[in-house]
Amino acid sequence: MSAEQERLARVRLSHAVEPGDGHVADRVLEIGAQATIDEVVALGQRPELVARLRDVDPDRVLEIAERTGLRFVTPADVEWPTQLDDLGHGQRVQGMGGVPVGLWVRGPMRLDELAGSIAVVGSRSATSYGFGVATEVAATVARAGSPVVSGAAFGIDQAGHRGALSAGGATVAVLACGADRVYPAAHRELVDHVATHFAVVSEAPIGSAPTKVRFLSRNRLIAALSTGTVLVEAALRSGALNTAHWADDLSRVLMGVPGPVTSVTSQGVHERIRVGAATLVTSGLEVLELTGLAGQHLVTPPRGPDRPHDAFSVDEVRVLDAVPVSRGASAASIAGVAGVSAQEADRVLRAMTDAGLVRLDVDGWRVVAPGSAR
Amino acid sequence: MSAEQERLARVRLSHAVEPGDGHVADRVLEIGAQATIDEVVALGQRPELVARLRDVDPDRVLEIAERTGLRFVTPADVEWPTQLDDLGHGQRVQGMGGVPVGLWVRGPMRLDELAGSIAVVGSRSATSYGFGVATEVAATVARAGSPVVSGAAFGIDQAGHRGALSAGGATVAVLACGADRVYPAAHRELVDHVATHFAVVSEAPIGSAPTKVRFLSRNRLIAALSTGTVLVEAALRSGALNTAHWADDLSRVLMGVPGPVTSVTSQGVHERIRVGAATLVTSGLEVLELTGLAGQHLVTPPRGPDRPHDAFSVDEVRVLDAVPVSRGASAASIAGVAGVSAQEADRVLRAMTDAGLVRLDVDGWRVVAPGSAR
Repeated sequence: MSAEQERLARVRLSHAVEPGDGHVADRVLEIGAQATIDEVVALGQRPELVARLRDVDPDRVLEIAERTGLRFVTPADVEWPTQLDDLGHGQRVQGMGGVPVGLWVRGPMRLDELAGSIAVVGSRSATSYGFGVATEVAATVARAGSPVVSGAAFGIDQAGHRGALSAGGATVAVLACGADRVYPAAHRELVDHVATHFAVVSEAPIGSAPTKVRFLSRNRLIAALSTGTVLVEAALRSGALNTAHWADDLSRVLMGVPGPVTSVTSQGVHERIRVGAATLVTSGLEVLELTGLAGQHLVTPPRGPDRPHDAFSVDEVRVLDAVPVSRGASAASIAGVAGVSAQEADRVLRAMTDAGLVRLDVDGWRVVAPGSAR
Repeated sequence: MSAEQERLARVRLSHAVEPGDGHVADRVLEIGAQATIDEVVALGQRPELVARLRDVDPDRVLEIAERTGLRFVTPADVEWPTQLDDLGHGQRVQGMGGVPVGLWVRGPMRLDELAGSIAVVGSRSATSYGFGVATEVAATVARAGSPVVSGAAFGIDQAGHRGALSAGGATVAVLACGADRVYPAAHRELVDHVATHFAVVSEAPIGSAPTKVRFLSRNRLIAALSTGTVLVEAALRSGALNTAHWADDLSRVLMGVPGPVTSVTSQGVHERIRVGAATLVTSGLEVLELTGLAGQHLVTPPRGPDRPHDAFSVDEVRVLDAVPVSRGASAASIAGVAGVSAQEADRVLRAMTDAGLVRLDVDGWRVVAPGSAR
């Protein structure tokens, strides 16, 4: 079997088999594309598939592809994103799964550049809050060099693509319809822009319409292509939770951005975090930290401003606590209130004088008001 | 050593030793209160403490307590909340810790009724969002019979107490000042109401003012008294994080309510959830589930409304997907689009007719519009 014959067999399968047909994908992995076709025809158990396989003319499909600016990428190509091979070991979700026989690609970006990419997915009916956070996360991630993968849908998907573009970064759209088409139609400009500069990818036949099943199988590609998936807003039945499920199943890093518990579009995200499937993230930097190579993106743990008495012992805090603000007090009196010895109070008061926290006035020790001269 | 002498020794310690003095607490646990006093006096290493111990007249303190409506509760009392004994094994936070030598209580509620109580804590500068969620959580928890414990501060603490009261439930305020005093003064009405119907509790000497150290040691009591602590809003340096730290250290259930990542008052909560110290909760029901006895508070996992094709196989979804909405189609045509055999399409279409999802019209099969008559 020549490589060219095998490639044409994959084109044939790509146009005859529904995306995500786990059985066919497994056979292709085991015995190759042409042998799978031969087996399906010989066994005759799926006459409708046999008819479809017969109907496809691979040379003609490749001709159409060339005319519409698409290329067909298979595991035999150098640019094949090898992380997709993980789908060969993954479980089946609603019977779906497996490594795609090939991907139709529109755009100049090589798919092997998607190693280290981040998926940003979420609700189509995003709130302005979710849209804003998704944009920030995508921009930060893209600025750091990680392409942003999403599905070009309304809401969070769109914000993911636009955030990456706004940062001058790369972004790739994975579609449920043919890679030559645009869905939703309102996103023609966005999708065409992504295709012009980066890549639009689909497993579905050229010219095909998006269907429920194709959305589900498309979601597995988004999860498999990226190192981590960030779920920004997702109601309890959001399609983005399907992507999250795939990410989890493929041992990708699954992250969720929380929101108000009063917002239905955050319920699905909160549920995933609550059960421990997703890690809570609040920014693109945290996404980079969780998905980056060790030490590559170290996030300084968020903390409030340092305060002078952070490093104090309990006794020292007690002494400071016992120094009056409005009038002076003797070291002995302060020691009594603080419950420490007079010597200890004296030592602490002198150290705090050096730190500019207290001062010795004519009537005794008093606190230096914050903001006053030292 | 008679029980009465031991009790008076505890009163003496309570008024001479700063709350949270871990060293004294440990000695009391090991050798008893009077022996600890004798040891401190004999060793003479803490002259200021010796002086204070000498100054306290326990009989006089108890007389004042009676006059101000306070009682002194120690481990020897039936109402002692035994969960506080966990503090004897706990670590020291900034040198603080240990079982309190006794608690001053104002109010009719017995402290042993605090088994199974829930602490609701958070930012003093809460947002209206946080205030609302804290109120809901406290109300739900209190309605289910769990008292709500908090610190009577502005913001989330207040919402916790008020939420419990609004639900007709019990709530207890643990103060950093003497149990006869009110802090903050603006909460006099609230604290007096809690004292009239439930209990106001403090480890600090009668009449004493709240100090930084007393707030920190008070926080350990809130965490130790309750089965679980709910952190509603907390900036990165919020005192509520100190309570959270104690809850974590004492192996209490620590829960956090998320909020917008753009809100500084949620940053501390998000950080605790992110590192896995706190479990994300979105409602009082989830708090009950995480802290209740097994099976006592089972929460139905949140999910969207059931949809008829949830239970469908992929082939069935494909068939349903292939049935047109705007015109009829033959079973054979639908089978072709769906990629299944005509027999399978026919079987599925009849099952879906029974489910009211499709119907056979004069021009063939079509989808029944949602909401139309079956």
